[in-house]
Amino acid sequence: MARSYLDWNATTPLRAEARQAMIEAMDVVGNPSSVHSEGRAAKALMERARAQIAAALGAEGQDVIFTSGATEAAALALAGREVHCAGVEHDAIRSWCIEDLPVDRAGRITVTDPANSALQLANSETGVVQELPEGLYLSDLTQGFGKIPFAFNWLGTTCGIVSAHKLGGPKGVGALIVKRGTDIAAQLKGGGQEMGRRAGTENLIGIAGFGAAAEAASRDLEGGIWREIEKLRNILENAIADRASETIFVGNESHRLPNTSCFITPGWKGETQVMQMDLGGFAVSAGSACSSGKVKSSAALVAMGFSETEAGSALRVSLGPQSREEDVMRFAEHWLKCEAKHRARRG
Amino acid sequence: MARSYLDWNATTPLRAEARQAMIEAMDVVGNPSSVHSEGRAAKALMERARAQIAAALGAEGQDVIFTSGATEAAALALAGREVHCAGVEHDAIRSWCIEDLPVDRAGRITVTDPANSALQLANSETGVVQELPEGLYLSDLTQGFGKIPFAFNWLGTTCGIVSAHKLGGPKGVGALIVKRGTDIAAQLKGGGQEMGRRAGTENLIGIAGFGAAAEAASRDLEGGIWREIEKLRNILENAIADRASETIFVGNESHRLPNTSCFITPGWKGETQVMQMDLGGFAVSAGSACSSGKVKSSAALVAMGFSETEAGSALRVSLGPQSREEDVMRFAEHWLKCEAKHRARRG
Repeated sequence: MARSYLDWNATTPLRAEARQAMIEAMDVVGNPSSVHSEGRAAKALMERARAQIAAALGAEGQDVIFTSGATEAAALALAGREVHCAGVEHDAIRSWCIEDLPVDRAGRITVTDPANSALQLANSETGVVQELPEGLYLSDLTQGFGKIPFAFNWLGTTCGIVSAHKLGGPKGVGALIVKRGTDIAAQLKGGGQEMGRRAGTENLIGIAGFGAAAEAASRDLEGGIWREIEKLRNILENAIADRASETIFVGNESHRLPNTSCFITPGWKGETQVMQMDLGGFAVSAGSACSSGKVKSSAALVAMGFSETEAGSALRVSLGPQSREEDVMRFAEHWLKCEAKHRARRG
Repeated sequence: MARSYLDWNATTPLRAEARQAMIEAMDVVGNPSSVHSEGRAAKALMERARAQIAAALGAEGQDVIFTSGATEAAALALAGREVHCAGVEHDAIRSWCIEDLPVDRAGRITVTDPANSALQLANSETGVVQELPEGLYLSDLTQGFGKIPFAFNWLGTTCGIVSAHKLGGPKGVGALIVKRGTDIAAQLKGGGQEMGRRAGTENLIGIAGFGAAAEAASRDLEGGIWREIEKLRNILENAIADRASETIFVGNESHRLPNTSCFITPGWKGETQVMQMDLGGFAVSAGSACSSGKVKSSAALVAMGFSETEAGSALRVSLGPQSREEDVMRFAEHWLKCEAKHRARRG
């Protein structure tokens, strides 16, 4: 059966450019910390990727600290600090923060003390995009990077977090971006890598893939691909809204990522929906992938003021550059069929 | 100019099996934490790699916690604990430990309180292999894994540290191996991955490469490849010893890794040697790659009782499965030529 992958906020297929860069990097033998010719070649490859990522982000190469992903970047920036955040942040942020920033039902977060707060650029579940106040300590840029235009140097944020696998790079690579002069104490110790801010031999192949993916994503963004994806998302929401009148589209009154649709059908469990969609050939999710093993309602939706039942009845569809109108129409058809059955069962 | 890569303890070329497994993993779209079909396929791939690594290590899959490398594995096992170690351990271990275990000039370390000590299986610079006492808290197995036979389950060690890129896997992937029932508190938080012991979307492509490399390394080890490599190492040492009488072979009275030769030529700086060898087409190193950016003497050799001058005059040659007798003979010839020049300059 043909499958449609509609879970791009969880992770993306590897871009052809990333694949190519990674395969080329496989032939680079040296350790980037070695001083001989092989080591210098490895170092040069890594620095090329760093420059690609910095350019795509509107930052400087020396501000990019490579990590094993956004989760490690969050720990590096947040552990041991007293930073405030809202309940809609990713668990990797919430784990280190004081969770007391208010969120409204439209997903908008109020920040009172930017210098001691973390605020996501865009939410992975609802797609709601925040306006970042000047002087913010940290922004989780993972879902926005590559999908909406911004320049780190203009955000006025001290730290930014990005992840390769959200924009067509490999899983297990990310970066912490830090404004010049910010003191970041290494958590991984034992080598001078990343200017003493993160020890450990670098994931060279993954970093090469991240660099190529960031460059390609940036080019696609400029080319207007996400405007096309937004049209598909709107087609999907209109098709569902036309026939499922009880379904609530979360955050659709706010500025959202162009690819994300989160909708609540009260009483129809999100997990059940995910399974029924999976059987129909569609990969979608309920809540963020990282916590989808756990059977619980979306903390983000609860933080926005939805009830536990509502938060447990949400489905997220997230599209990407490979999504086609056909995928979206077939999905809507299958979902509406299942929804009608669900309603019939409830009587 | 043909080059000879003789720095396998710093990092290894990617094995063909790892390359193949990584390229295949590039087509796996899902996030291992997603419950849909694509997510389960990603999870299955990861679990296959985990089983391959466990089999190669003589451990159980559930004891393997994937990390971004040995450095992260060390931090995960050691941070916040009071563990003793010797000065010959890797910086990633030393950074977290009380460095008070004695080492003799042959590289042998005395452990008095195994339950609160870290002891490497083999030293990266000298190749000296330790006898691990029963009940040890942690052993850095990175240099031994794939080169000498052992089974984690029989070592009597609570934690073991391994790294993919030391045995033909990619850089930036490793694991902490923990004996069942050991309490390991996550340092990266925000997801339930690795049974709650290490959050963050996994480096799936890298992990697939690690699994294939570990399996291939294990097969090569059983096939006796390292006995052949040991012969080459001995050919090299004999060729040098025959004509450079002042040169000291470190640890050669101890049990050593079959591929490693560390030799001190007092007064001839290791860094100078590395550069001269590089110009001659040979990649070798002075000290461990991770700290080779820093211009200082090998802490490991100083810990063994060598003077700062001696420790600063060491060169490490480390061979691997692709090393040929020709590489070794050409290296010895070039090194001896340079050494003669050095001696002539000194007068």
